Amino acid sequence: MKVFASLAAGALIASLAAPAVAQFQRPDDAVKYRKAAFTVMGTHFSRIGAMANGRVPFDATAAANSAAIVETMSALPWEGFLAGTDKGDTRAKPEIWTEQVKFKEGAEKLQVETAKLSAAAKTGNLDAVKAAFGAVGQSCKACHDVYRKD
Amino acid sequence: MKVFASLAAGALIASLAAPAVAQFQRPDDAVKYRKAAFTVMGTHFSRIGAMANGRVPFDATAAANSAAIVETMSALPWEGFLAGTDKGDTRAKPEIWTEQVKFKEGAEKLQVETAKLSAAAKTGNLDAVKAAFGAVGQSCKACHDVYRKD
Repeated sequence: MKVFASLAAGALIASLAAPAVAQFQRPDDAVKYRKAAFTVMGTHFSRIGAMANGRVPFDATAAANSAAIVETMSALPWEGFLAGTDKGDTRAKPEIWTEQVKFKEGAEKLQVETAKLSAAAKTGNLDAVKAAFGAVGQSCKACHDVYRKD
Repeated sequence: MKVFASLAAGALIASLAAPAVAQFQRPDDAVKYRKAAFTVMGTHFSRIGAMANGRVPFDATAAANSAAIVETMSALPWEGFLAGTDKGDTRAKPEIWTEQVKFKEGAEKLQVETAKLSAAAKTGNLDAVKAAFGAVGQSCKACHDVYRKD
């Protein structure tokens, strides 16, 4: 079991790092890409938050649209965390690269929670959206607290 | 017919400008958002291009994945073109705001072509991907030539 866990962890690390090497021409491109994905995700997540927190009226169609975008975007940034891209115009902490298994677990947790948010938003039930929004927010925060510079 | 066309044009302009006002806290947020959407779109479009042009081997699954992202992203940047956001960190030309109907036609054309690209990529047929890729590229270029500073 331990051997399997170790192999699985190795595979996870490889899958995190391997495609990215070929997918970006330069390290800066990877940084720009991951930040862009976070910007689009954060913009639409904030719109749902404004509804969840009562700052703007609940618009079920808009919430479902934004939640679908959040879900799609939540899969994207991770390949941009190439080895060596803790430099330049980024707040990424070096711990991302020394704790890749834990980092990837956080990334996967986010994707699970954003899928739940998208499903909740499709029901048009504001209470369900509020609950799922909170869970996504906690998932965001869990990684930001540890892996993002202030 | 002219009256209708004029009314329709007015509605298009309103729909382009209206939601954005409420959706972004500051003009800079709108600029950042639209650029982020273009960055994600461009990254994945380039990956398809690398396959279409034979620079990397054709990977049907990767192409379909990137094409789906391109299609999703192609709907997003437009609301970020708020009135007054031709300033700051942007290459957007003022003509965007004086030719809103034409600009919106270009935006819609792109969305039509990216949907075709996504459909083509799902077939796994490289020739179909190449053809659809070219059409999307022409749609990108048509707007960039007129509405983006060098």
